[in-house]
Amino acid sequence: MAGPLDLITMGRIGVDIYPLQTGVPLPRVETFGKFLGGSPTNVAVAAARLGRATAVITRTGRDPFGEYCHQALREFGVDDRWVTDVDAYPTPVTFCEIFPPDDFPLYFYRLPKAPDLVIHPHELDLPAITAARVFWMTGTGLCAEPSRTATLTALAARAAGGRDGQVATVFDLDWRPMFWPGGDPAAARPFYRAALAHATVAVGNVAECGVATGEREPRACAEALLAAGVELAVVKRGPAGVLAMRRDGTTTEVEPHDVEVVNGLGAGDAFGGALCHGLLAGWPPERLTRFANAAGALVAGRLACSAAMPYAAEVDALLAAEATE
Amino acid sequence: MAGPLDLITMGRIGVDIYPLQTGVPLPRVETFGKFLGGSPTNVAVAAARLGRATAVITRTGRDPFGEYCHQALREFGVDDRWVTDVDAYPTPVTFCEIFPPDDFPLYFYRLPKAPDLVIHPHELDLPAITAARVFWMTGTGLCAEPSRTATLTALAARAAGGRDGQVATVFDLDWRPMFWPGGDPAAARPFYRAALAHATVAVGNVAECGVATGEREPRACAEALLAAGVELAVVKRGPAGVLAMRRDGTTTEVEPHDVEVVNGLGAGDAFGGALCHGLLAGWPPERLTRFANAAGALVAGRLACSAAMPYAAEVDALLAAEATE
Repeated sequence: MAGPLDLITMGRIGVDIYPLQTGVPLPRVETFGKFLGGSPTNVAVAAARLGRATAVITRTGRDPFGEYCHQALREFGVDDRWVTDVDAYPTPVTFCEIFPPDDFPLYFYRLPKAPDLVIHPHELDLPAITAARVFWMTGTGLCAEPSRTATLTALAARAAGGRDGQVATVFDLDWRPMFWPGGDPAAARPFYRAALAHATVAVGNVAECGVATGEREPRACAEALLAAGVELAVVKRGPAGVLAMRRDGTTTEVEPHDVEVVNGLGAGDAFGGALCHGLLAGWPPERLTRFANAAGALVAGRLACSAAMPYAAEVDALLAAEATE
Repeated sequence: MAGPLDLITMGRIGVDIYPLQTGVPLPRVETFGKFLGGSPTNVAVAAARLGRATAVITRTGRDPFGEYCHQALREFGVDDRWVTDVDAYPTPVTFCEIFPPDDFPLYFYRLPKAPDLVIHPHELDLPAITAARVFWMTGTGLCAEPSRTATLTALAARAAGGRDGQVATVFDLDWRPMFWPGGDPAAARPFYRAALAHATVAVGNVAECGVATGEREPRACAEALLAAGVELAVVKRGPAGVLAMRRDGTTTEVEPHDVEVVNGLGAGDAFGGALCHGLLAGWPPERLTRFANAAGALVAGRLACSAAMPYAAEVDALLAAEATE
């Protein structure tokens, strides 16, 4: 290895089979496109587009869609050395419906189990995970074994490693009740708390922060996330913008971009990849959240997710245009 | 009910998500079309296209793809009154790769269980099943409970009904090892034999006939199927054509059509729907198999499956063209 990676993400991968017609329900969709998908995979793609050296830790089925995941990762410049295959389950596929501006139902085919939930702790390259400047994991990785223990093992290794050279350990709260037995936040919360104890940054929308903390109000959520162990809490408030709170009490609030939404899916992952980029650059909270917000807005204005992740120049251009308005 | 239906089929339903580019592996497919799918569903569509009053007994998920199945059945003129939904599982989707002329791998998303395998015996409209002029079931319907008992219950009811007004009870041998625990033909054979005891027509390729009978040679297969209880055995020999053998020993062999294969998937279902049409018409074996063969050839020359099922005039035109060659 030439040196520590900028970013390692860990968790879901799959193939998004997304409608090429928007505003119509699935029964009336005629054609679909195929895109690399899975939230932490998209975050890695987003950071790679911004010039960061990234890798993803995940697993696919042993099938043509699994091969596609490898090919797509490489084309996006994401290191796929830690993407292995599982014989027992197919590579997950996900369909969606696109009803702009705010309704994007997802239909997951991840049963009986997704290969990315079969990540075993003993397979992890803990030295590389510990050395990575940013590590990103998600709540979904905690929903089943062995992925849950593997994810907590990775977090514990980074914390035990003394954090030398580490910029951030990000917990994307990513609450997907359909992946949890009974869909019960109370069942998830102990694992969320265990992950928060080792994370340095928590990111989520208000509902996700509520699952992690039991709070409902954005500032109370941020305070509870900080109390649970992180140094920076980023609460995505949708139309109300983004709230970022640091442990020293500094609070930043950023307004949302006025974007014509084409497909809201993937915007959060663009935000996440851009957040990693800004953390790596050492930007202050305001610049960090503005940039991430703009990256998310660009993807929301595009049909695709992974393939739509913006380059830095595109984000800068949007921010510049906004500044002159 | 206005009177007995011409045809009731029972078994698989789902959505085929098929490549719009042929000759390339899934990783390189860019766009997909959406088609009603599932073999017995396609057989019902094929017979409806030929003017027959048909219905299908099956179950979908409670989701937009389930709604699509209903809409598509109605558009194809297939009665969907016995298509109910299951809350626990999504409507299955199936992907394929299209490598003409003879390689069409299928990738099923039917785990942990397809709704069409959750057909309960007590839900069956046995009077309607018994009264139907033709009833069509498949080997896949026998792979799991409660569908297995439901399928055998339907067959037994037809046999016990005295066969008044019945034209045929067709067993499509349809061997899909991935749907059976361990993929073991020996485990399937007792259920195949139980179904054969009540069927009057058996249809399958040589491999499928082998699963049902243990035989390997086409004539031996046909004889074993007749010995197991049917009156007509139809052995599909691919490039070697079709062999039909009646209990009275009459044997018909029909050459394959010289067709430029676009997508071989669905050709067997077109054959099946046309076979039902011919049985209903009371055609002798030669005309029956020629017509069914031509219907299959037409679908093999088209990309779609259900949507490609031919009208009678198209089949007649192909047969006429062949006769003048």
